Amino acid sequence: MFDFKYYTPTKVVFGKGTESKVAELIKEFGGTKILIHYGSGSVVRSGLLKRVTDTLDEAGISYVTLGGAVPNPHLGLVYEGIELCKKEGVDFLLAVGGGSAIDSAKAIGYGVANGGDVWDFYDYKRQATGCLPLGVILTIAATGSEMSDSSVITKEDGLVKRGYSSDYSRPRFAIMNPELTMTLPDYQTACGCTDIMMHTMERYFTQGGNMEITDALAEGLLRTVKKNAIILRDDPNSYDARAEVMWAGSLAHNGLTGCGNDGGDWMTHKLEHELGGLYDVAHGAGLAAIWGSWARYVYKNCLPRFKKFAINVMDVADEGTDEEIALKGIEAMEAFYRSINMPTNLRELGITASGDDLAIMAHKCAVGVGGEMGSARVLNEDDMLNIYRNSQ
Amino acid sequence: MFDFKYYTPTKVVFGKGTESKVAELIKEFGGTKILIHYGSGSVVRSGLLKRVTDTLDEAGISYVTLGGAVPNPHLGLVYEGIELCKKEGVDFLLAVGGGSAIDSAKAIGYGVANGGDVWDFYDYKRQATGCLPLGVILTIAATGSEMSDSSVITKEDGLVKRGYSSDYSRPRFAIMNPELTMTLPDYQTACGCTDIMMHTMERYFTQGGNMEITDALAEGLLRTVKKNAIILRDDPNSYDARAEVMWAGSLAHNGLTGCGNDGGDWMTHKLEHELGGLYDVAHGAGLAAIWGSWARYVYKNCLPRFKKFAINVMDVADEGTDEEIALKGIEAMEAFYRSINMPTNLRELGITASGDDLAIMAHKCAVGVGGEMGSARVLNEDDMLNIYRNSQ
Repeated sequence: MFDFKYYTPTKVVFGKGTESKVAELIKEFGGTKILIHYGSGSVVRSGLLKRVTDTLDEAGISYVTLGGAVPNPHLGLVYEGIELCKKEGVDFLLAVGGGSAIDSAKAIGYGVANGGDVWDFYDYKRQATGCLPLGVILTIAATGSEMSDSSVITKEDGLVKRGYSSDYSRPRFAIMNPELTMTLPDYQTACGCTDIMMHTMERYFTQGGNMEITDALAEGLLRTVKKNAIILRDDPNSYDARAEVMWAGSLAHNGLTGCGNDGGDWMTHKLEHELGGLYDVAHGAGLAAIWGSWARYVYKNCLPRFKKFAINVMDVADEGTDEEIALKGIEAMEAFYRSINMPTNLRELGITASGDDLAIMAHKCAVGVGGEMGSARVLNEDDMLNIYRNSQ
Repeated sequence: MFDFKYYTPTKVVFGKGTESKVAELIKEFGGTKILIHYGSGSVVRSGLLKRVTDTLDEAGISYVTLGGAVPNPHLGLVYEGIELCKKEGVDFLLAVGGGSAIDSAKAIGYGVANGGDVWDFYDYKRQATGCLPLGVILTIAATGSEMSDSSVITKEDGLVKRGYSSDYSRPRFAIMNPELTMTLPDYQTACGCTDIMMHTMERYFTQGGNMEITDALAEGLLRTVKKNAIILRDDPNSYDARAEVMWAGSLAHNGLTGCGNDGGDWMTHKLEHELGGLYDVAHGAGLAAIWGSWARYVYKNCLPRFKKFAINVMDVADEGTDEEIALKGIEAMEAFYRSINMPTNLRELGITASGDDLAIMAHKCAVGVGGEMGSARVLNEDDMLNIYRNSQ
C-alpha cells in the first residue's frame, strides 16, 4: 500500500430541513458578507433561495446573489463573481445547488483570495495559496464537490475544460437535505448515481498498492448506490434511498475510498470530458457510455481488481477462470446501467461520431493528460482512439 | 434513519516515517510554543521523542515536555500540564503516544482555553467553549482519540472515570506511522483490535434508524480488523496488517460508522468502565470479557441487527431461525476473541469477583448512566448485575 493523506474538514449537517441551519453555520465559520451563488432557476422556483435569504435576513447577515452557474460552469461567470465579491466586500461564499454552483463558487473563491487571473490555476501556471471560505447547500447528489478538493471550470474560448484541486477549496460546511433532491428528473438522478459510483470505481481499478479496508469501504459504497439507484428508478420520492445516495456521493469523492492506493485510474473521466466538450451530454451518462469499452480494453492488465469487483460488488459467482469472472462483472455492470436507463455505448447515448471526431477527441484527451495516463492500464492516444471506436 | 452531523477536520498523514513531518504540520496549524505530552518511557526509549525534538529544534520551534500520562490518565497530571502551559505560554499541544497521552492532552487543552476547574467539564457542570489546538503522533492503534471528539479522564480521589466530548478537541493533525506500533506487546495489540471493533459494534447494535451505507462501511471495517488481528497474532511485524488496523482504529471512532443511527448502544463500554475502575484490567480485554454476556442478554431485543452481524461480519450461513443465526454470530465472535487470546468472561480475564463487588459495579454503572441506558436493549441496575453475573 502507499502512504496517504486524508483531510475532510467539511462539517456535514445531514437531514430533513437542515437548510434552516445555514445562518448559524455561516456565523460559526466567521462569514459576515455573503455571496450566494446558484445555478439554474430551480432553486428560485422551488422557494429554496427565498428560504435561505429569509434565514439570513432574520440573522442579520448581509448578502448579494449571483445565479446562472451552468453544467460545465463557465469562466466568464467566475470572473463576474470575483468582481462582485471585491466590490461588495464578500468574505464568505454560499453555493446553493449541485456541482456546477459549487465548482463555480470554488473558482470565485480562488480568484478573490489570490488575485491575478484565476484561470492560471486551471491552466497549470500557478498554485493557489488560499481560497475564500465556502459553505454549501446541496441539491444534487453527484459530483461530491461538497466535500472534495476539486473543481472543474470550462473556458468558453475553445471550450477548454480543466480541473484544479487544493485543500483550500474544501467547503467549511455542507448542508445535505435529501428532500431537496426529490425534484430532479429521473435521468439526472440516474446520472448522479453513475457519477458517484464512478468516483469510487476510478480509485478502485489500480495496479495494486491497495488497502483492504479501503476496498471494503469502496465495495460497500458501490453495493449501496447500486441497490438504491434501482429503488429510486421505481420510487423517486423514497427519502431513505435519496439519503443513501446523497451521503454516498460525498464519501465517494472526499478521498475515503482511495486511501492507500496509487491515486486511481481516472481515464474514464478523461475520455468522457472530451465527449462532453464536443457533444451536449450529461456527465454521468457519458461515463456510463464509455466505461464498458474502457473496461474491456484494460481488464486483462488489471485482472485481480476486475475479478474482486465482479465478486464483491456485482455478485458474480467465484467460478470459472479469472478472465471469465472479470468479464461477467463488466457485463453485470453494463446490465445495471441499462436497468437504470443509462447508456452503455455512444449509440445509446444518442451520438453518431465521425471517424474524424473520434480522432479529435483522442488527440485532445492525450494532450490533456500529457501524452499517456491510467493505472489499470496506461493508455496512449492510439489506445484512447480504440476505446472511443469500441464504444460506438 | 436519523439526521446526523459528521465532522472530522483532522488532517491525517499516514505512512512510513511520517513523524518527520511534525514541524511542518505544527507550523501549518499555527503552533509556535509547544507542549509535547507523552506517556510511558517507551517513546523515550524507542528514540521517537528525540527524533521529534530534533525535528522541532531544526525548525526553530520551541517546546516544553511533560511525560507520565498513564492508562486511564489522571486528573492530577492534567492540572500539572495546564499550569505548565500557562507558565510557558504554550499555544499548541503535541500528544505523542496512544489514547492516554491524547486524552490527557485534550483535557489540558480544555483547561488552558476555558479557565476554571477543568474537571467541571467531565463532571457535567459546564460546557467548553474552546480547546488549545492539538496534534498527535500515534503509537498505539486502539482508542481512535486521534480523530475523535472524546477524552476520558480519571479523578484519582474516588477513582471517578469520566468522559467529555466536544468538537473543539478534535486533533488538528494526526501522524500515523504503522511502524511505530510494532513494538507493542501482542496482548496490547489484541486489546487494541478488540477496542477498535467495539467502537463500531457499539454503534451497530441499535434499535433501527440505521443507514445501509453506514452498515456496509461498518461491516467492512469489522471484517478487515478481524482478519488482520489474526495476521498480527502470527506476524506482529506485518506492516500491512499494522496499517489496516491503525487506519481502521481512526475510522471506527471518528463518527463515520454511526452516521444515521441513534447514537449507538455503548453499554459494553459502560460495564467495562466499572470493571476497569475496580480491577487492573486492560480496557480491550475487559470489553471482550463482558461482550458475550451482554450480547446473550440483549440479542432477542435486537434480533435483526444480531442476525445481520452474524451473516455479514462473522460469515454465519443464512440458515435456521433468526435466533439461531444470531446466537451463532455471538459464538463466532467469542471464538474470534479466544483465537487472539482475548478473554470471553471474567474468569478468563483473571478476575474472581465477589457478589458484593458485582453489586457495587452494577450500582456505580447505573448511577453513572443516570439510571438506565442502552439501545439494543435499555438496561437498568438489575440487568447490569445479571450481565456481570453471567460473565463470570
